[in-house]
Amino acid sequence: MNKPSIPKGTRDFSSLEMQRRNYIFNTIGDVYRLYGYKQIETPALELLSTLMGKYGEEGDRLLFKVLNSGDFLSDVTQQDFDEKNLPHIANKLSEKGLRYDLTVPFARFVVQHRNEITFPFKRFQIQPVWRADRPQKGRYREFYQCDADVVGTDSLLCEIELILIINEVFSRLGIATRLHLNNRKILAGIAEVVGVPDQLTELTIAMDKCDKIGLDGVMEELRAKGFSDDTIQRLQPFLHLEGENGERLEALATLLASSEIGCKGVEELSFIFEGLASQHLTTEILFDPSLARGLGYYTGAILEVKAKDVAIGSITGGGRYDNLTSIFGLDGMSGVGISFGADRIYDVLLQLDAFPTTTNTSTQVLIINFGKEEVQQMLPIVQKLRADGISVEIYPDAAKLKKQMSYADSLAIPYVILAGSEELKQGIFTLKDMAEGSQETLSQEQLTHFFTSKEH
Amino acid sequence: MNKPSIPKGTRDFSSLEMQRRNYIFNTIGDVYRLYGYKQIETPALELLSTLMGKYGEEGDRLLFKVLNSGDFLSDVTQQDFDEKNLPHIANKLSEKGLRYDLTVPFARFVVQHRNEITFPFKRFQIQPVWRADRPQKGRYREFYQCDADVVGTDSLLCEIELILIINEVFSRLGIATRLHLNNRKILAGIAEVVGVPDQLTELTIAMDKCDKIGLDGVMEELRAKGFSDDTIQRLQPFLHLEGENGERLEALATLLASSEIGCKGVEELSFIFEGLASQHLTTEILFDPSLARGLGYYTGAILEVKAKDVAIGSITGGGRYDNLTSIFGLDGMSGVGISFGADRIYDVLLQLDAFPTTTNTSTQVLIINFGKEEVQQMLPIVQKLRADGISVEIYPDAAKLKKQMSYADSLAIPYVILAGSEELKQGIFTLKDMAEGSQETLSQEQLTHFFTSKEH
Repeated sequence: MNKPSIPKGTRDFSSLEMQRRNYIFNTIGDVYRLYGYKQIETPALELLSTLMGKYGEEGDRLLFKVLNSGDFLSDVTQQDFDEKNLPHIANKLSEKGLRYDLTVPFARFVVQHRNEITFPFKRFQIQPVWRADRPQKGRYREFYQCDADVVGTDSLLCEIELILIINEVFSRLGIATRLHLNNRKILAGIAEVVGVPDQLTELTIAMDKCDKIGLDGVMEELRAKGFSDDTIQRLQPFLHLEGENGERLEALATLLASSEIGCKGVEELSFIFEGLASQHLTTEILFDPSLARGLGYYTGAILEVKAKDVAIGSITGGGRYDNLTSIFGLDGMSGVGISFGADRIYDVLLQLDAFPTTTNTSTQVLIINFGKEEVQQMLPIVQKLRADGISVEIYPDAAKLKKQMSYADSLAIPYVILAGSEELKQGIFTLKDMAEGSQETLSQEQLTHFFTSKEH
Repeated sequence: MNKPSIPKGTRDFSSLEMQRRNYIFNTIGDVYRLYGYKQIETPALELLSTLMGKYGEEGDRLLFKVLNSGDFLSDVTQQDFDEKNLPHIANKLSEKGLRYDLTVPFARFVVQHRNEITFPFKRFQIQPVWRADRPQKGRYREFYQCDADVVGTDSLLCEIELILIINEVFSRLGIATRLHLNNRKILAGIAEVVGVPDQLTELTIAMDKCDKIGLDGVMEELRAKGFSDDTIQRLQPFLHLEGENGERLEALATLLASSEIGCKGVEELSFIFEGLASQHLTTEILFDPSLARGLGYYTGAILEVKAKDVAIGSITGGGRYDNLTSIFGLDGMSGVGISFGADRIYDVLLQLDAFPTTTNTSTQVLIINFGKEEVQQMLPIVQKLRADGISVEIYPDAAKLKKQMSYADSLAIPYVILAGSEELKQGIFTLKDMAEGSQETLSQEQLTHFFTSKEH
């Protein structure tokens, strides 16, 4: 029989990996709660009518579609079969698909439950999503997203608080970060001022690459895309802003003075910087007018976070959108959200060796098994330790001592208790410290005290 | 545009439902960890070669199959299309499926990672599973299972500890329970002694219904299935055991004296009862020789738990299996496991009104928004409260007071802080207790003290 395996791009998580992943999820969840965000969950399966057309053509192709139950072929005609129009046939074979992100299901949730929801609605959601992407290093077909969004208000206080959340999460995780902040309205203003209001997308896609290809590269790309020398000339001052965030914003305000939307963008960003000024942040906040972010639905602030000490791309992103729920027929519901990339954060913590050591162990004591009689006598003592919150294992079999000790060793269990029939009669226990290699003899009372005083 | 919806049999979970679900999951996970079980996770998608044939014919039919990416039709011939052999065509359209339970993926995990695992391997797993069942009240197409298993040992200490885990979980949840305990070997012994060793399955299926159709019903069903009067006569003493668990086991031992496997079953159960005797259990343990459990892979102890005060069927089940991993080619790996039914436990807690009230609220204080200036001044104070672990929300807009208060009200936020510009100048804050309707005026220091002394 072949060794069993799992689908490409999916993963099993070992106990150690789970502890580390839970550490990340719990940190993010705790901070979300601290700011009043409420957790929801949506089903893994959504109707394809909910998902299709929301992620562009490529997204539609990358959706995992689930074969209908029962006679899934009943709607497929001979003509369909002959024509081999795959999307058309897929549509007949399948009406459900796996969640592709948390944003569209959230928009669906808001519209579907709008009569039960109290707005402004602050929700967070930590769940896996699935994409039929080509698997490659660091890119998976099943991965978690950790989103927080607030809808039903256009208050910039939300942007400020989401940045404070990001700061708090990375401060707790011990990752030094730089947050790149921009506003889509500023990008629209720049496009207006340089005279290409209708080519906002092409312009920003090129500017967004500044990081990778440098300023000269951006110029070249713009020329290749047919932007005039005149336009590129007018763009120069926007690409050469200097000084602190405040100074660069001020200079930008002057350059954008003739654009109403541009001024609005500058004003919004200024308010955010003002709100953050009174806070002690460990995250560096950088006004980055070249930041564009791919997603088409953003209309206001946009942000991206990078780890300062690990080159891995963006580890968190987000922005404001004015019309997300309108795809499901509900207008006028402005919102703003962020999403932590748990897998990349995991890789950063691993590279920085920054996982707390407590995430390496769970069981605190192993009881050596000397036989059925001894175990029956040990059980009440073990239960007392557990009642005090100490995680205890009894080795299930009376195996050779060496085997039992090596079990404790390979699971990184820090303490081992040995008590044979003779010792149990006397009420004494040998406690071995696995890291130190030392051991001492304790009474039951001393034993309990040792762990309760240590752990609480 | 139509109101969006979700697939039949799936659910959205609101914030309140999530808090309640997390309360159940966390309770179960905490107890598993206390007993040294380690958490793992497996992917939602498994290869169909892993899943097919493991759950019987009905299970194969109820698997959600995922359409292959790319040209999913390429292997389907005109002959296939003409013949409409659905399982055959499904096999060509799809190579992945959604996890149907946690047991088969666990067996696959053990075999796949056997060289990295330290045995005995105690793992727990809390994840959703998917079944294309006909949706009905209390039965969903996506639901969570909460499993713990240990493989690589046949020690009965594992059975004892799993029962202690069940006792501890329901004791923490405040649900009065009765645990029905039996052993497949006893059932095999009974079949031997009454003369139908080859009809074990039919015999136990009938006996298992004793609960629902009564003793007479069982007799009738056995007769209908062609069991002889002689056999039914010989079965009588097994159905009329009386007294305490120990007395009934003793009587059974006599009845089964001629069956080697039957005696082994009695011996195993006796050891378990002995081990539990020294423990203070809130769960009632009942030796129930009519308990059979459907799953074919059990070979030793079997158990089922029922809530005493709510009629809802089994809320936890489990048992020992000697050959689970042999479906993936790894023999000699005895194991035993249990599974908590989270959805039914949820319903029981709801009916008993036994969810702790703290699961009804998350945010502890709402700050009334009197305008941008005031918010900028409040922000440092809010951050101080959050640094102390107090979950605080600032209402994002300077809306009418009534609207802001009704927000606090509908989210069950217990306290509201009001501070207009005049009060901020004086450094005083009005704190309103939403439940009492009372309010008091506090300094910043008093405010911080109020919450930190209250919550910690």
